[in-house]
Amino acid sequence: MKKFLKSLVEKNRGISELGNVANYIPGLEKSNKHALGLCIIKTNGTIYSIGDYDVKFTIQSVSKPITLMLAILDHGEEHVFSKVGMEPTGDAFNSIQKLETCKSHKPFNPMINAGAIATSALIKGADNQERFDRLLNFFRKISENETLEINNDVYLGEKRTGNKNRAMAYFMKGEGYIDGEAEDALEVYFKQCSIEVTAKDLTKIGLFLARGGVMSNGERVVSERIAKIAKTLMITCGMYDGSGEFALRVGIPSKSGVGGGIMSVVPGKMGIGVFSPALDEKGNPIAGEALLEDLSDELSLSIF
Amino acid sequence: MKKFLKSLVEKNRGISELGNVANYIPGLEKSNKHALGLCIIKTNGTIYSIGDYDVKFTIQSVSKPITLMLAILDHGEEHVFSKVGMEPTGDAFNSIQKLETCKSHKPFNPMINAGAIATSALIKGADNQERFDRLLNFFRKISENETLEINNDVYLGEKRTGNKNRAMAYFMKGEGYIDGEAEDALEVYFKQCSIEVTAKDLTKIGLFLARGGVMSNGERVVSERIAKIAKTLMITCGMYDGSGEFALRVGIPSKSGVGGGIMSVVPGKMGIGVFSPALDEKGNPIAGEALLEDLSDELSLSIF
Amino acid sequence: MKKFLKSLVEKNRGISELGNVANYIPGLEKSNKHALGLCIIKTNGTIYSIGDYDVKFTIQSVSKPITLMLAILDHGEEHVFSKVGMEPTGDAFNSIQKLETCKSHKPFNPMINAGAIATSALIKGADNQERFDRLLNFFRKISENETLEINNDVYLGEKRTGNKNRAMAYFMKGEGYIDGEAEDALEVYFKQCSIEVTAKDLTKIGLFLARGGVMSNGERVVSERIAKIAKTLMITCGMYDGSGEFALRVGIPSKSGVGGGIMSVVPGKMGIGVFSPALDEKGNPIAGEALLEDLSDELSLSIF
Amino acid sequence: MKKFLKSLVEKNRGISELGNVANYIPGLEKSNKHALGLCIIKTNGTIYSIGDYDVKFTIQSVSKPITLMLAILDHGEEHVFSKVGMEPTGDAFNSIQKLETCKSHKPFNPMINAGAIATSALIKGADNQERFDRLLNFFRKISENETLEINNDVYLGEKRTGNKNRAMAYFMKGEGYIDGEAEDALEVYFKQCSIEVTAKDLTKIGLFLARGGVMSNGERVVSERIAKIAKTLMITCGMYDGSGEFALRVGIPSKSGVGGGIMSVVPGKMGIGVFSPALDEKGNPIAGEALLEDLSDELSLSIF
Repeated sequence: MKKFLKSLVEKNRGISELGNVANYIPGLEKSNKHALGLCIIKTNGTIYSIGDYDVKFTIQSVSKPITLMLAILDHGEEHVFSKVGMEPTGDAFNSIQKLETCKSHKPFNPMINAGAIATSALIKGADNQERFDRLLNFFRKISENETLEINNDVYLGEKRTGNKNRAMAYFMKGEGYIDGEAEDALEVYFKQCSIEVTAKDLTKIGLFLARGGVMSNGERVVSERIAKIAKTLMITCGMYDGSGEFALRVGIPSKSGVGGGIMSVVPGKMGIGVFSPALDEKGNPIAGEALLEDLSDELSLSIF
Repeated sequence: MKKFLKSLVEKNRGISELGNVANYIPGLEKSNKHALGLCIIKTNGTIYSIGDYDVKFTIQSVSKPITLMLAILDHGEEHVFSKVGMEPTGDAFNSIQKLETCKSHKPFNPMINAGAIATSALIKGADNQERFDRLLNFFRKISENETLEINNDVYLGEKRTGNKNRAMAYFMKGEGYIDGEAEDALEVYFKQCSIEVTAKDLTKIGLFLARGGVMSNGERVVSERIAKIAKTLMITCGMYDGSGEFALRVGIPSKSGVGGGIMSVVPGKMGIGVFSPALDEKGNPIAGEALLEDLSDELSLSIF
Repeated sequence: MKKFLKSLVEKNRGISELGNVANYIPGLEKSNKHALGLCIIKTNGTIYSIGDYDVKFTIQSVSKPITLMLAILDHGEEHVFSKVGMEPTGDAFNSIQKLETCKSHKPFNPMINAGAIATSALIKGADNQERFDRLLNFFRKISENETLEINNDVYLGEKRTGNKNRAMAYFMKGEGYIDGEAEDALEVYFKQCSIEVTAKDLTKIGLFLARGGVMSNGERVVSERIAKIAKTLMITCGMYDGSGEFALRVGIPSKSGVGGGIMSVVPGKMGIGVFSPALDEKGNPIAGEALLEDLSDELSLSIF
Repeated sequence: MKKFLKSLVEKNRGISELGNVANYIPGLEKSNKHALGLCIIKTNGTIYSIGDYDVKFTIQSVSKPITLMLAILDHGEEHVFSKVGMEPTGDAFNSIQKLETCKSHKPFNPMINAGAIATSALIKGADNQERFDRLLNFFRKISENETLEINNDVYLGEKRTGNKNRAMAYFMKGEGYIDGEAEDALEVYFKQCSIEVTAKDLTKIGLFLARGGVMSNGERVVSERIAKIAKTLMITCGMYDGSGEFALRVGIPSKSGVGGGIMSVVPGKMGIGVFSPALDEKGNPIAGEALLEDLSDELSLSIF
């Protein structure tokens, strides 16, 4: 099996040539374009780690379903979905226009930037420090990695250049979908995006979802329903405006980030983590997508 | 089980009060707003039929994944998806704007009107008569009902009033996504929407997909891959711009139509057909959606 | 004066190099890219004709304010503006999206394609032949040129390739802004666009408007108010989505066409006609615009 | 003449009933809905003042063409129009979507909120205090009223609730159309909107433009070209997304504000100021528009 996985990684590594590493967030442009890492952990504990599986990168949008789970733990499903919708948008992840053109002016879903910022605004805490600490601890817990930290340079870069995210936050503040200060929501959001992980960390989180919200030691952290919500939104909206094609070609609930990460869940079977920093034009890891398509085809992993 | 299903139908029938039957297509306004029918057939052959399961209605948009399968049989996956995309739109099913605003001007997916018309344009045949006959025969085959026919009054009504669909067809013709005449594509499309079915017919089609493209008698009609394509698009785009919420609440690949039908597939397990002509504001059968949510919760049918 | 005008034409002829002749309507691509003609007639009858002032070309969008005047004569201001608005759009002249996104679904103004088709639909007549004959006679009358005819090749080309215009016509039919058949409105529209004129003919029409709706022989054809409506819409919407900049730089009510014509009006003073087939990226005659800016600056012709 | 003007004001006062005073900016809701004031000053110095001509209100969007003139004085035409366009948008004055959907992401014109904020960002000064002081002095100078001050309550209200304007400012900052801090541009913008004026003050500013940029004492403050730029943008974009209809019905370069003011210019002839706080659905003073239409009709003031 390991040999087989290695051959898939080697087969797809060259595809990175067709993509580009993100450069609009200061720091990301330093990634090695040709890196490709894969980690798989089955629910029975078997683990496979190939290539650049232990290279650190910032989690970026892969953080979105995780923050969503804590927001639901904090406020319940009904309140969270009164602030953010459940529908795919058909637009780019950083698009602002639907906030204005749709009737409710509500962010469409928690997987695009607008909805993710509204979700980050829901994390409870006396102040921003406590809010982010609670969130970081949640990331550490479900990744079973107590050493997770943010990359401060990337955080400061996002904060400095994140004017479009800021625009969305103020728009939503104006429409009542962010209750506190817009800048507070943004600080939590920029920090969560800057958490450094490896493909193995993402695999652990995928495994947590594959088990329906349960850790390796058997501890239930979120309800099966909350885990299901995360997985569903990953299928319908997890790969930006390429989610439909990815569902069709791969069929595995997944969330990508412009840092190069993909966190994938085969319900009941396994978690998968990928590191592939060269992105396609929609912002998805280009070699990682191809690798997951091969994996899905060869091992019949599609949920459909 | 039957008693249990009956109680679910009765519980949800009252919800119809909150919706309205479609009136923009002449003929549909005659439906009984309070009708509610359910049919389930398991892959082992067990069948449950409750309420208005044998009332005839026009299939409307439920026809879309079916026509897609024949188009792929006729041309192959690659050619079909060069004419129509795979992404949810976030817009209403009859919206034209993304044809102009997106870069490629390509219809986003085969489940919205624009994409469905482009799909209908792909059905092979020497003339429109042959094209529609082939399509009708395909519907008859996979529903295992040789008596399916179109409702001519509804067809003529759609043809007479379908100016927005016509607008989309000409726009796509102008952009090269329809090769033949726009009016020919529209004729096939309006006819396929006007095919009369019952909830039971839809159940049979759902069962066909649940079996991965195989009929009751074991005959394989489409490949497993084609069946999977249909099911995936039903999850991401099958319930119009309510698909995301439906995936999250129900989690069963389904396709709705403004005639009141819903065709649902629990892969490997069962086909489900619903008749519920009172629609919510997105055009989905309002009692039918609630009924399917109850069913999914009670019987753990979500694919996530 | 003539020498001065000649020098302005020569100065601006080279600018054509930066533009391109239209090629999306079969026939237009044959125009001489470097042609530039200017004709000016003062209200006192003095006439200046320079360069390619007598080369024939199709009138295209310059026809729009003229058809509008006949439509108002036929139905009155109130009825006409119940079918088409008065507002600039900010979008390209052939854009369909605002028909869907604006609340009323009404075409924004009679100078963009959608609004012009809705206007053409208003010309009275027992059949299309009579409608177009009445319109052609109106063009002949106010241009004081009985020999105006359509270019049949261009007409057939527009008819064959005009699928986006067709899309708009059907959309407006569906929304009730076209009362008769969409194809009838399109036939009149495509024919009016295909009328062959020279810069001199456009000058005569401009002069007619400069006189407030009166011919050289003193005959009043339209009321001062109708002439004023045409001139106002030419300032706010006459140069497609470059109208604002043109108003600011030139300040002369003008209407351009992709055939290369510009018809300009200096109220009370003169009509101006330009032929300049190389277009800028918004579809406006590139050398013609520069020439009119020079003219306006040198002769202080801005109405502001 | 005065009697005649009085009768026009009385005739149109009742129309206020059909509108509503603005309530989204704290403070504006206190205006007297039925107020109507008119002031006219001819270039020969004759002055007519009727009704509520000396009631104070905040200038709001009427400030936009004034700030534009100072920005051009500070930076020149070319630089200013590299940061803001010249085209009408067809959208509401506070709409953000075209910033994203148009190719350049540049605000369309200085008369909508986005463009006005970008313009305010251009006022020179060592700090915000100096920037606003320079701007206020410019307002005082051309209105020939040294007592102009801001209404601090309205300013603080706009600052507190202006989240959509903030969203636009950050979006434009992200796209490079605001060079300094977004919050600095907003502070100047919110303050300029909060300057208190009377209809008479607006008349003086209108008169200044009617004279082509010259004060009563003959001092030239801006060039004729700069005055012309302001007047042109007032015709094409001055009355929000009702500018086209206003140009057609009234034909007088005018700028409205949601505080109830309209500043109008009849070039070479007169300045007109109106106070009419009841607004129509586009945000324009409803009785004021009707009054100006009557005035234009009766006195033949249209520039077309």
